[in-house]
Amino acid sequence: SEILVPESGAVNRVCLGIKGLVVGFVLKIWRFLEKAWNLGVSEPKKVIHCVKVGMALSIVSLFYYMRPLYEGVGGNAMWAVMTVVVVFEYTVGATLCKCINRATGTFLAGSLGIGVHWVASQSDEKIQPVILGISVFLLASAATFSRFIPSVKARFDYGAMIFILTFSLVSVSGYRVDKLFDYAHQRLSTIAIGTSICIIISMLLCPIWAGDELHRLTIRNLKKLADSLDGCVTEYFKEDETESINEKDTNNNNLQGYKCVLNSKATEESMANFARWEPAHGHFNFRHPWKQYLKIGAAMRNCACCIETLNGRINSEIQAPEFLKRHLSDVCKRLSSHSSIVLEEMATTMKTMRKSSKIDLLVGEMNFAVEDLQNALESLPKQLMISSPLLAIEASNDAKEELIMKPILIPLMDILPLATVVTLLIEITVRIEGIVDAVEELADQAE
Amino acid sequence: SEILVPESGAVNRVCLGIKGLVVGFVLKIWRFLEKAWNLGVSEPKKVIHCVKVGMALSIVSLFYYMRPLYEGVGGNAMWAVMTVVVVFEYTVGATLCKCINRATGTFLAGSLGIGVHWVASQSDEKIQPVILGISVFLLASAATFSRFIPSVKARFDYGAMIFILTFSLVSVSGYRVDKLFDYAHQRLSTIAIGTSICIIISMLLCPIWAGDELHRLTIRNLKKLADSLDGCVTEYFKEDETESINEKDTNNNNLQGYKCVLNSKATEESMANFARWEPAHGHFNFRHPWKQYLKIGAAMRNCACCIETLNGRINSEIQAPEFLKRHLSDVCKRLSSHSSIVLEEMATTMKTMRKSSKIDLLVGEMNFAVEDLQNALESLPKQLMISSPLLAIEASNDAKEELIMKPILIPLMDILPLATVVTLLIEITVRIEGIVDAVEELADQAE
Repeated sequence: SEILVPESGAVNRVCLGIKGLVVGFVLKIWRFLEKAWNLGVSEPKKVIHCVKVGMALSIVSLFYYMRPLYEGVGGNAMWAVMTVVVVFEYTVGATLCKCINRATGTFLAGSLGIGVHWVASQSDEKIQPVILGISVFLLASAATFSRFIPSVKARFDYGAMIFILTFSLVSVSGYRVDKLFDYAHQRLSTIAIGTSICIIISMLLCPIWAGDELHRLTIRNLKKLADSLDGCVTEYFKEDETESINEKDTNNNNLQGYKCVLNSKATEESMANFARWEPAHGHFNFRHPWKQYLKIGAAMRNCACCIETLNGRINSEIQAPEFLKRHLSDVCKRLSSHSSIVLEEMATTMKTMRKSSKIDLLVGEMNFAVEDLQNALESLPKQLMISSPLLAIEASNDAKEELIMKPILIPLMDILPLATVVTLLIEITVRIEGIVDAVEELADQAE
Repeated sequence: SEILVPESGAVNRVCLGIKGLVVGFVLKIWRFLEKAWNLGVSEPKKVIHCVKVGMALSIVSLFYYMRPLYEGVGGNAMWAVMTVVVVFEYTVGATLCKCINRATGTFLAGSLGIGVHWVASQSDEKIQPVILGISVFLLASAATFSRFIPSVKARFDYGAMIFILTFSLVSVSGYRVDKLFDYAHQRLSTIAIGTSICIIISMLLCPIWAGDELHRLTIRNLKKLADSLDGCVTEYFKEDETESINEKDTNNNNLQGYKCVLNSKATEESMANFARWEPAHGHFNFRHPWKQYLKIGAAMRNCACCIETLNGRINSEIQAPEFLKRHLSDVCKRLSSHSSIVLEEMATTMKTMRKSSKIDLLVGEMNFAVEDLQNALESLPKQLMISSPLLAIEASNDAKEELIMKPILIPLMDILPLATVVTLLIEITVRIEGIVDAVEELADQAE
């Protein structure tokens, strides 16, 4: 029994260890599923997309499973299934872009491949592999290089890949040219079946348009900018610290909105690229000025950068004294609320795609608020003088009232943090006017 | 001849039109080729990559062309060619990532597909298509959904696609299970040939490591930050406008460096993702802390945002009066040069991957420069008083010298633009310290 005790202890420990591992594993999977579930609930469009992909694949699989058209796997059915898997993308634009790329790439490479094959078949048998090898090498290198050129990459990246693939496949094939035509015909028809299933399902069943997504993203970002600007200024000038943790969390979320704006460049660019392939839908024409959205995005990021700096000031250690802050609190808040009203009006303009009638008035009000703020800052020293009773008495005892009324009271270093915030707020209004211009240009172009 | 004149005129016009079109087309192609050539000259690594792809494809094509192993196109040769085309990426990490994904995805989906096939083959012939259809639908939907989950998307996006593809292909196949094993064996072996050719060529012939690229990108960005900070401050405080257009261009290029930093988030993230798959190379271990590079990147973008705001101030309409600028010019320039020295020291630290011995000293000097700047700003009013001879005389006539020495001379609104620049410069130093912390943490972790 003396020997058994440590052994059962070891067994116990091993058991516990395994139990821990299993529990950890189950917990990990559980958390993953929970995350997936939350994603699905928050973005039902993505779930719909998944169902659509499943449907397209089932249809194409069964279509070929039921018809004994092919001989074994690797026949033609494969190309249809493969096309659906590779081509079906989240948005209609991306799907169309890939379909067109795939069809064009296959067609071009196929004809070129047949040509090279014909040349090779005319020559000596020993030279044949050399001709094929060199042609594959040259064309594959050139096509790969073209994928690095930005203008090609943006639109024909997938097409270039398919070009390489098809050309290599054709050149590997040991067929004679007449058989190649048969093969090409079959392959093109299966690709046509695959792409048409994809296009029909993605366009008819709850279509997700890249243009629409870009449009919504821009509107959402405008609102986020407005919220975080407001949030920043309120946070900076808030007086009581007795705020519940919940409030702080929502505040913080609002505040961080500008970060989404800063990070949305890549998304915007790919969306704008895909949107150009889309037919007219909703209130967007075929030639809707999608490029203008990129300009709006750039103007917004420009503004977001300034808000990020402003946010940095709020969290800075060096702060202006409270009494100074209180003096400018109202004007600053007024300016920020005018600014966010302008941003929100822009969001409405985007929604309706019509020039706002109020916008000139609102921008005017914003600029008045800027002037008010400048005046308030200028008159700050005098105001403080008057509002300080102790100093007022001192001043009355003195004959040279005028001279003492000078801004001796506030050291420059105390005003500095506040003055910076004011300048940043003014700079933000300038950048907001940049956004207004970009949005108005869009409304002009869309008409 | 009366009739011929207008006709020959029309013919001429058509000729001219066609000539114009042809010339335009040739010019367009010429410009495209020029752009491509410039890209190739500026980034020879990309050309090398293209040559490598061409080589890999030629090898695999000829390998299969020479051996009459397959029956027609669509046989096994296809999978090897396809693997090379799809899997060969610019960096070793991306290639490895895709190879592993492809192998795992094919293996998992293949075994699952054979299982489902077995279940279907046991049941009634009429139910078979139903079972297959439902299983394809469910698995394809689930796998597509998993591609939306960020953690899966970052690493297993391609694997999920291959999973869907293989599973659908296996389920379409009308084979009996024993033949499926044969097929699976063949397919896996061709994929193995394709992936091994890719891996060997991408790792042995002038390998382009994602980790290395990320490392260089970070160092380059640090230098760009230093340059644009210096450029900004010099531009702001420059006195003579007699600068040649050439100089202005180079200056402008330097100035715009921070924009590259702001836009490099997506590149950094994908590089860091790929770098994790790479084996030890150069002076990087297998478990090199690549994630820390993302933190450095975030700190740099933080700083770049501030420089962007500073740049906005430089181009602003409201400027401080020249005499005020001249007073702070030296201290500001000193601070900016100390800041960029710190940034450049960070670039050196990154290069050597060793904690710099000088960095504490340099940061100390930077902080001294900050204090100097603060003092200079604080003493600004008095300095100006003394330096203005006319006012000095006036002051000596007056008994109350002390009182007149107050900063009545400079209105707050005049100081404001300059004061903002100073605050931004100080804020930038704070953010540079953030970069220093991140880089030092990297050096710590790398040891």
